[in-house]
Amino acid sequence: MTTVGILGGGQLARMLALSGAPLGLRFLVMDTAADACAGQFAPMVVGDYRDEAALGEFASRIDVATFDFENVPAESARWLTARVPVFPSPRALATAQDRLAEKTLFRELDIPVPEFAAVTSRADLDAAIGAIGTPCILKTRRLGYDGKGQFRIKVPADAAAAWDALGAQAQTVGLILEAFVPFQRELSVVSVRGRDGEFRAWPLTENWHVDGVLSASLAPASVDAALAATAIDHARKLADALDYVGVFALELFCRDGVLLANELAPRVHNSGHWTIEGSETSQFQNHLRAVLGLPLGEPRMLGHACMLNWIGAMPDATAVLREPAGHWHDYGKAPRAGRKVGHATLRCDDPLSLADALARVGSALGREAQVAPVIERLRARNA
Amino acid sequence: MTTVGILGGGQLARMLALSGAPLGLRFLVMDTAADACAGQFAPMVVGDYRDEAALGEFASRIDVATFDFENVPAESARWLTARVPVFPSPRALATAQDRLAEKTLFRELDIPVPEFAAVTSRADLDAAIGAIGTPCILKTRRLGYDGKGQFRIKVPADAAAAWDALGAQAQTVGLILEAFVPFQRELSVVSVRGRDGEFRAWPLTENWHVDGVLSASLAPASVDAALAATAIDHARKLADALDYVGVFALELFCRDGVLLANELAPRVHNSGHWTIEGSETSQFQNHLRAVLGLPLGEPRMLGHACMLNWIGAMPDATAVLREPAGHWHDYGKAPRAGRKVGHATLRCDDPLSLADALARVGSALGREAQVAPVIERLRARNA
Ligand SMILES: Nc1ncnc2c1ncn2[C@@H]1O[C@H](COP(=O)(O)OP(=O)(O)OP(=O)(O)O)[C@@H](O)[C@H]1O
Ligand SMILES: Nc1ncnc2c1ncn2[C@@H]1O[C@H](COP(=O)(O)OP(=O)(O)OP(=O)(O)O)[C@@H](O)[C@H]1O
Repeated sequence: MTTVGILGGGQLARMLALSGAPLGLRFLVMDTAADACAGQFAPMVVGDYRDEAALGEFASRIDVATFDFENVPAESARWLTARVPVFPSPRALATAQDRLAEKTLFRELDIPVPEFAAVTSRADLDAAIGAIGTPCILKTRRLGYDGKGQFRIKVPADAAAAWDALGAQAQTVGLILEAFVPFQRELSVVSVRGRDGEFRAWPLTENWHVDGVLSASLAPASVDAALAATAIDHARKLADALDYVGVFALELFCRDGVLLANELAPRVHNSGHWTIEGSETSQFQNHLRAVLGLPLGEPRMLGHACMLNWIGAMPDATAVLREPAGHWHDYGKAPRAGRKVGHATLRCDDPLSLADALARVGSALGREAQVAPVIERLRARNA
Repeated sequence: MTTVGILGGGQLARMLALSGAPLGLRFLVMDTAADACAGQFAPMVVGDYRDEAALGEFASRIDVATFDFENVPAESARWLTARVPVFPSPRALATAQDRLAEKTLFRELDIPVPEFAAVTSRADLDAAIGAIGTPCILKTRRLGYDGKGQFRIKVPADAAAAWDALGAQAQTVGLILEAFVPFQRELSVVSVRGRDGEFRAWPLTENWHVDGVLSASLAPASVDAALAATAIDHARKLADALDYVGVFALELFCRDGVLLANELAPRVHNSGHWTIEGSETSQFQNHLRAVLGLPLGEPRMLGHACMLNWIGAMPDATAVLREPAGHWHDYGKAPRAGRKVGHATLRCDDPLSLADALARVGSALGREAQVAPVIERLRARNA
C-alpha cells in the first residue's frame, strides 16, 4: 500500500486523489486550511508548511510527496527530501517559482522569451523601461498566480504608479519587468516526464484569460503541426534540463506564428483539466504514474474538448448535465469572489458539434462572452 | 451541499464516491466492516444494518440513500425510507432480492425466463425435477451472489445431494429450481431510470463467468440490432414496472438467438465497470444523477471496451499500464481467495486492436484463458 503525500489541498490535490484511487493509492494532504477541498476525499494534516512538527507528521505517514501548490517554501520541500522522495525535485520547483530564474533558463535553452529585466530599485525600473520599451508589465518574481502581483505599464509615466503598487516587494519576492506581448493566442503544452526520463505531451491547448485568470481552454489547439512540434520540443528540453518528474505546463504566447515562453507551472495545470474526459489518460493520473515510476499513460485526444472555468460561484449544473457532451466538476468549495470553484468540460467527436454545445451552454447560463472566442475558433477552423 | 448515503462499503460504493465527487457531492458509507474499501475515500458509519442506532446516525447525516449491496435487509431499507428518500425503492429491492418474485415478474411482463418452480420440501424438489427435467439448478431464493447458494443437478439422482447442500435453507431464504440453460452467450443490459421515468441503456455487454463469478465483459456485445433492441426493451419494461430509480443490470442468457432473463441486479453492476472509460457517462455517475433527480448522462460507447476482473489478488499492474488502451482499478482491498479485488479495462477504437491488446496483457500476466473467449469473439466479428 503506497500513500502519496500532497502539499496543498485545493482542487488539484482533490483531482489527483480521485484519479489516483483506481491505482490503489492512498493519499494524505497537507494544507494550512482545515476546510481545504481535497480533505473531503483524503485525510489531512493541517499546518503551516514551515512547521517542522506538522511537516514531520506528514512525512512519517507517506511514501512519496508531490505538490498541488508550487509556492510551498523551497526549504520545506528540501527538508522533506531528506525524509521521503519528492517529485518534482525542489530544484525544479525553485526554478519555476522564480520568473527570473525560469526566463533565464528558457533563454539558455534557446527557447524564445519576451524581453525581460530584473528590477531591484526604482532607478532599475526606469532603466528597464528605457531598454524594453512600453507597453510592458512589472511582475513579482515569486508568489504570483492568476495574474496577481502584476502591473501593466502603458507609457513610461506609469512607472511611478507601478512602483507604488509593487516596489515594496522588490526586496522580498523580487521584481521583473517584461515586454508586453501583443499575442494573437495563448497556448500551453501540458506534458509529463517519468522518473526514467520518458516524456509525453498532450496535444496543444489554446487558452483564454479574463482579468489574468484562465477562463476557457480548447484542445487540440488549431495550430499547424510545425508550431505544435516546436512547442512540444520546448517542453521536452525544459523537462530534460530540470530532470523534471511529473506533469507540468509550459505557457506560451503566439504572435505572428512565433512562440514566446511565458512561464512553466510545475504541477498539474488548469489548462489540462480537459484531459480527464478528453484524453485517454488524464494529467492527474499521469502525474501520479510519473511520481511513482509507473509506465506513463497515453496522452492522445478523444475528440475535441473545451474546458470552462467557474470563478466565484458555481452556475446551475443542469445546462451542462443535459448536454450529451457535458461533464461537471464542482470542487466542493464555498463561493468567494475570484475563487476557482469548479469547471465544466464539453467533449465532442468533431469541432462543430462542440461549438454548438458551447453555444447552448453559454446562452443557458448567460455566459455568451465566455464561450464566444472558443466558438469563433472552432467555426473558423471549419470555414 | 448534498450528502449521499450508501449502504454497503465495497468497491461499488467506492466507485460511486469517486465518480460522484465531481458533482460536488459528499458521501457517507455504512458497512459492517470498519475496513470496507470505500472507507478509504469516504467517511463511514460502522454497524449492522439492523442496528437502529447506527442506522439512525447514518440517516441523520445524509440527504438521500442508495445501495452498494442489494442484500441490505428490506426492513432496514423501509425504516430508512421513513427518514430520507431511498433509491431504488425498498419494493424494487425486495423483488430483485428474491429469485422467485423476480422471475414471476419477468413472466408477467412477457419476458421469457428458464422454467422454474418454488421448492419448499424434499418432495417439492422431486416433483419440480420431474416437471422441469434435468439438467437443472437448485438455488437459494435470497442472498445468493457470485454463484454461491447454487447446486447443479445433472440427473434426477442428484436430488439427494442437492437437498443435503441446500435443503436446510428452504425455510430460511427459500429455494427455487431452474432449468439449466445451455446458452451460447451471457449478456447484460446495464441501464438507468431517472426519478422522472426517463430511461437510458448502455450498449449490450457480453459476459463470461468462471466458477459462477464474472471473469470478463465485452462491450458493445456483437449481437444483431434486433436482439439488442429486445434486451433493452425487456430492461425498460422491468424498470417501469418497478418504478425503478437508478442503475440496474438485467442478466440474460442467449440460446439460439433467444433471450432468457436470468436476474436483475438492483444496483451498479460488475458488467458495467467498463463504462468508466468506455462510455461518455459511467454507470456510477448516472446512478447518482438518477438518484438525485439530475439530467441523465449519455450512455454512448467510446469505442470498444473489455473489462477483466481480478479475483483473489491483484496481478502486476505494469502489463496493463503500459498498454495505450489500459486502465487499472485496484479497489484497495486485502487479497483473499475468491474476492473481487480489482479490474482492468482496455478500450480501443476498433475491435481488432482491442483483441491484440488483450492478447498482450493475457500473455504478460499468464492469463491466456481469461482473455481467450473475448479475443475469439472480437476476431470472429471481423472475420
Ligand atoms: N508579457 C505579457 N504580455 C502580454 N500578456 C501577458 C504577459 N504576461 C502576462 N500576461 C497576461 O496575463 C496572464 C497571467 O500572467 P502570468 O501567467 O504571468 O501570471 P500568473 O499569475 O502566473 O497566472 P497563472 O496562475 O494563470 O499562470 C497571461 O496568461 C496573459 O494573458
Ligand atoms: N439456469 C441457468 N442455466 C445455466 N447457467 C446458469 C443458470 N443459472 C446460473 N447459471 C450460471 O451461473 C452464473 C451465476 O448465476 P446467477 O447469476 O444466478 O448467480 P448470482 O450468485 O446471483 O451471480 P452474480 O452475483 O454474478 O449475479 C450465471 O452467470 C451462469 O453462468
